Amino acid sequence: MKAKSVKKGIIFATITALLLAIPGVALGADPTVESNAIAIDTIWTLIAGFLVFFMQAGFAMVEAGFTRAKNAGNIIMKNLMDFSIGSIIYWLFGFAIMFGIDKAGLFGTTGFGMSDTFEHLGLSIPLPAFLLFQTVFAATAATIVSGAMAERTKFVSYMIYSFVISAVIYPVVGHWIWGGGWLMERGMIDFAGSTVVHSVGGWAALIGALLIGPRVGKYTKDGKSHAIPGHNITLGALGVFILWFGWFGFNPGSTLSGTNPDIGKIALNTNLAAAAGAAMTMIFTWFKYKKPDVSLTLNGALAGLVAITAGCLAVNPLGAAVIGALAGILIVLSVEFIDQVLKIDDPVGAISVHGVCGCFGTIMVGAFAVDGGLLYGGGSALLITQIIGVASVFAWTAVTSLVLFGIIKATLGLRVSEEEEVRGLDIGEHGMEAYSGFEMKAPSVNL
Amino acid sequence: MKAKSVKKGIIFATITALLLAIPGVALGADPTVESNAIAIDTIWTLIAGFLVFFMQAGFAMVEAGFTRAKNAGNIIMKNLMDFSIGSIIYWLFGFAIMFGIDKAGLFGTTGFGMSDTFEHLGLSIPLPAFLLFQTVFAATAATIVSGAMAERTKFVSYMIYSFVISAVIYPVVGHWIWGGGWLMERGMIDFAGSTVVHSVGGWAALIGALLIGPRVGKYTKDGKSHAIPGHNITLGALGVFILWFGWFGFNPGSTLSGTNPDIGKIALNTNLAAAAGAAMTMIFTWFKYKKPDVSLTLNGALAGLVAITAGCLAVNPLGAAVIGALAGILIVLSVEFIDQVLKIDDPVGAISVHGVCGCFGTIMVGAFAVDGGLLYGGGSALLITQIIGVASVFAWTAVTSLVLFGIIKATLGLRVSEEEEVRGLDIGEHGMEAYSGFEMKAPSVNL
Amino acid sequence: MKAKSVKKGIIFATITALLLAIPGVALGADPTVESNAIAIDTIWTLIAGFLVFFMQAGFAMVEAGFTRAKNAGNIIMKNLMDFSIGSIIYWLFGFAIMFGIDKAGLFGTTGFGMSDTFEHLGLSIPLPAFLLFQTVFAATAATIVSGAMAERTKFVSYMIYSFVISAVIYPVVGHWIWGGGWLMERGMIDFAGSTVVHSVGGWAALIGALLIGPRVGKYTKDGKSHAIPGHNITLGALGVFILWFGWFGFNPGSTLSGTNPDIGKIALNTNLAAAAGAAMTMIFTWFKYKKPDVSLTLNGALAGLVAITAGCLAVNPLGAAVIGALAGILIVLSVEFIDQVLKIDDPVGAISVHGVCGCFGTIMVGAFAVDGGLLYGGGSALLITQIIGVASVFAWTAVTSLVLFGIIKATLGLRVSEEEEVRGLDIGEHGMEAYSGFEMKAPSVNL
Repeated sequence: MKAKSVKKGIIFATITALLLAIPGVALGADPTVESNAIAIDTIWTLIAGFLVFFMQAGFAMVEAGFTRAKNAGNIIMKNLMDFSIGSIIYWLFGFAIMFGIDKAGLFGTTGFGMSDTFEHLGLSIPLPAFLLFQTVFAATAATIVSGAMAERTKFVSYMIYSFVISAVIYPVVGHWIWGGGWLMERGMIDFAGSTVVHSVGGWAALIGALLIGPRVGKYTKDGKSHAIPGHNITLGALGVFILWFGWFGFNPGSTLSGTNPDIGKIALNTNLAAAAGAAMTMIFTWFKYKKPDVSLTLNGALAGLVAITAGCLAVNPLGAAVIGALAGILIVLSVEFIDQVLKIDDPVGAISVHGVCGCFGTIMVGAFAVDGGLLYGGGSALLITQIIGVASVFAWTAVTSLVLFGIIKATLGLRVSEEEEVRGLDIGEHGMEAYSGFEMKAPSVNL
Repeated sequence: MKAKSVKKGIIFATITALLLAIPGVALGADPTVESNAIAIDTIWTLIAGFLVFFMQAGFAMVEAGFTRAKNAGNIIMKNLMDFSIGSIIYWLFGFAIMFGIDKAGLFGTTGFGMSDTFEHLGLSIPLPAFLLFQTVFAATAATIVSGAMAERTKFVSYMIYSFVISAVIYPVVGHWIWGGGWLMERGMIDFAGSTVVHSVGGWAALIGALLIGPRVGKYTKDGKSHAIPGHNITLGALGVFILWFGWFGFNPGSTLSGTNPDIGKIALNTNLAAAAGAAMTMIFTWFKYKKPDVSLTLNGALAGLVAITAGCLAVNPLGAAVIGALAGILIVLSVEFIDQVLKIDDPVGAISVHGVCGCFGTIMVGAFAVDGGLLYGGGSALLITQIIGVASVFAWTAVTSLVLFGIIKATLGLRVSEEEEVRGLDIGEHGMEAYSGFEMKAPSVNL
Repeated sequence: MKAKSVKKGIIFATITALLLAIPGVALGADPTVESNAIAIDTIWTLIAGFLVFFMQAGFAMVEAGFTRAKNAGNIIMKNLMDFSIGSIIYWLFGFAIMFGIDKAGLFGTTGFGMSDTFEHLGLSIPLPAFLLFQTVFAATAATIVSGAMAERTKFVSYMIYSFVISAVIYPVVGHWIWGGGWLMERGMIDFAGSTVVHSVGGWAALIGALLIGPRVGKYTKDGKSHAIPGHNITLGALGVFILWFGWFGFNPGSTLSGTNPDIGKIALNTNLAAAAGAAMTMIFTWFKYKKPDVSLTLNGALAGLVAITAGCLAVNPLGAAVIGALAGILIVLSVEFIDQVLKIDDPVGAISVHGVCGCFGTIMVGAFAVDGGLLYGGGSALLITQIIGVASVFAWTAVTSLVLFGIIKATLGLRVSEEEEVRGLDIGEHGMEAYSGFEMKAPSVNL
């Protein structure tokens, strides 16, 4: 009995060591300074990626909270699906376009279906960790669009354009700026994706919202804009807090390196820009509308976050706060302009937050970058590069989105029937309602 | 004054160094390659544990959102309590059963009340970090049951069975597969607990739901199943996103090692399985019911997550996506079968998600494991081991749950009165209501 | 073409390496054991800081959920603003008061506007990472106040006192205990801020709630307290789970060091105290009120968390569980005493949770500290120091808050008009409502 017990003990210890993956045992190798550095970079990138994933919950809550109860299930479903389908398609296709071996500075050409080891990237962290991090970024771009087109877009059409954005439109821009393409060679700085992620989402949203037209009842016959209040601002606010939280993965995580001594600065800059954005929107709306506006202030925090995403490494904290504060003003003007002048119906302000502030923040790097920025004696070269980059991405995204949404509109149709829209997409598209037990106001064409 | 100031400066620096626990000062030792590796593993395990803790919020939102408003407070309270009481009892009792020195391959026998250093485990990370990680896992198993028995279980009875699951039923299975027991010796692979955590929760839920019977009004007299819609699908969806987020701690964290080079792959596999699960459920319900179903699709993501939990290390990304996709179909069939054929009332689908998909995923490791799986030329040995493991855990959990719930039913009773059930458990068990200010529909026996 | 391609490859690899910040390339230096240790400490501190940031979402959900629907937007806005304005002011001003070079043990005098490198702190991690961590702590203190003064405070007045707390009141206490001040020299132990953060927030809340007076309808003419139920306990519970999650950053992160071998123990102690607090409140209210109380039990978890914050490093797990359990009883008695004897209206129990349990937990360190505690043979010296610390912080916070709120009350006024209060601050202060689509009960003076 005893001998058996001892033997069992040895087997046990061995198996435990193997299964628990104790370093130096399971790995068959002792840790080294270099392996530790790689491990630090890997866990940093992964945890940052997890935080960016969680932003999907933030987008879902913002978009559902800021729109009507009758469409909440549909919005949730779109958010869940663009991430799910996006994860699959980016793994099989988008990643290769973005990080495959370059063709003419325009797109990647190798590694479809992850049939490559992507050695040319010279990654220090394992490829799957890098792929996961890139996947959660790719899904963000597609998600942005759903907000601007909420409450009237056919589910099947949404699936299709979400697929194309994750597979092609986003990865091409990603290749240009991050994957070895022509804008990367020009030295454009878009550290964590004000342009790559947010403006791509924002401009696709702009084209989508333009082509699909406003929600029923949004504009009166004489062209006056009619505010359609969100059904749950508390949840919308929760979404903003979740997004802010996730942004600490988005920006500092884009170093892909926890051994990078600048991660603290990036996190600080991110927080200051968000704080300055929210504070400035609050003050600005207080002056402009006599009362501090809750929904706009929530968007002001997001505006600051989007705007600092490009320059979070290149600027100093003061620059970050200024960029955030300016974005906090810009968002108010932009929301008003798009709503009342352009008369494009964007239920959650996605075009302004992601498109306008994304471009603004990218250009501001040309002014505020400590190394190369106009205000720091760096001349106008970087500023010009940034503007070229922003304009090129706008052109690419607008044109491809126009083709994409145009084809869908001409074939399947983008929009649900007016009857379905008035009744709510939850019933029309999914045969369910998001709320029961509460007495709900009857859905109405007059809102 | 000056001298005092200098002295104060020195004291200050010393105290600061001590209090701030600066490495190499507070620790009284310089860092080494080995101490750094241990630190990396420790912070990885802890952060993963924090994420798994946060899954409690996810379960609470899923279970509350998918059930009726009149029971939301009771559900919240049950979730809070099973974690709280589970944390205490697992620390004092369950951990020793699971990881104490083995007796006959069946259970641990040492370390009750943490009266041991558990040196035989050969842990590289500090014991408290390991204990915390195991605690948040243990609490998950108990939480799963509350969903299947929601809206009709007495609070006091819930407390008791939750206690027994955390103290005995779960730890014994944990010992078998992770703690040096007989299934571990046989080489069963359940890396992060498709069987240990999820199927134990799922099978206890099955027996519990069977014994307590369906909710009032769930089945009509002629046996037809009546859908009882959840009161807040938006919150339920938030819960699913939180669970998905937490799963990035659950699976990659189960390495207990941030220096393990496979953590990126595990995270990627986890994400692909969840994405494939959700996407496949969406497609499958679209074909089957003509409309993509929101609640089932949310459960499809969870199905993929549960199913990949056993094999997240052993399979490759393609295998992960396939397992997730199959789970996405299985969940729909299982929910329908349990609801309409077995006529067991499981308000949130916990039996299907955790029990059925947990077993399915564990068995699939025998097919998809790159090293030893049937489809990769590994023969049927692993597959048979997996099936034996799954069956044994089912037998243990079903029998012990039957005894447990049987005794409670025969003594205290499992179920609240019909009157209380119709009025809602919030009023009956806690004298409160979860919502005020909203006009609520009157609780009704006809729902 | 080929030559160009090769050249492009080289440029590409270089740029990639630079932009991706691959260690040893971007940093221009090979990693060392020391640089790895610093990196581990930095990512630990940052991730912990991110978790503490997320507690803002928790506070927002708790405060909104436990109050009425007509004030939800206002509460959200206050939470968002105290963090945003607090982040800016703490960066420019509060941090220097707290960590600048000491003057007479009372406050810091250098580094305003971050015009210093703060070398005297002897930090191993980069200054921006430390500043971010301290910023999220500072914002917590201000947030606590908003709960106790909810549903009746003018927005502009809130902005002002929130500003002063973040700029002066909190940083002075922080200096005393963490920044090299007189209580730090005396050896007071408040590891993560039961006193520095929570009691400062709690006592400011006490004075604020006292000066502003109870909500309309809270006390009947004969002095009876009238319960005003929260509008969404489900969301409030989500907030508690988020806070618990964030506390895993708050306490273990306060080591500022992932290489500190005690982080596992701190995390375990934190969890046990929270669990014991919730469990004990549940049991205690069950005996006292015949039914386990949901809102109080949620607060019981917070009570345990607040109470263990001071001693999470100094006590052992048993001590943590006992402190948490005692806090779980104390919170019930304190809430009742403040509500029914003192007749101070604290809608969310913030004074009891943060003030009372914060002091209680700090004093308990004098009893339960394994090294120096009364119960472990350490005599009464530490206990006396803890009591002096707690009393001094109470005196400072009460007096400065009295001046602050007194001045505001005498000038701008603290309180909205009765008409606005009855109608709701969302309409009055922000011209919006948090919910639409739901039928709401009319706001009423009779609640």
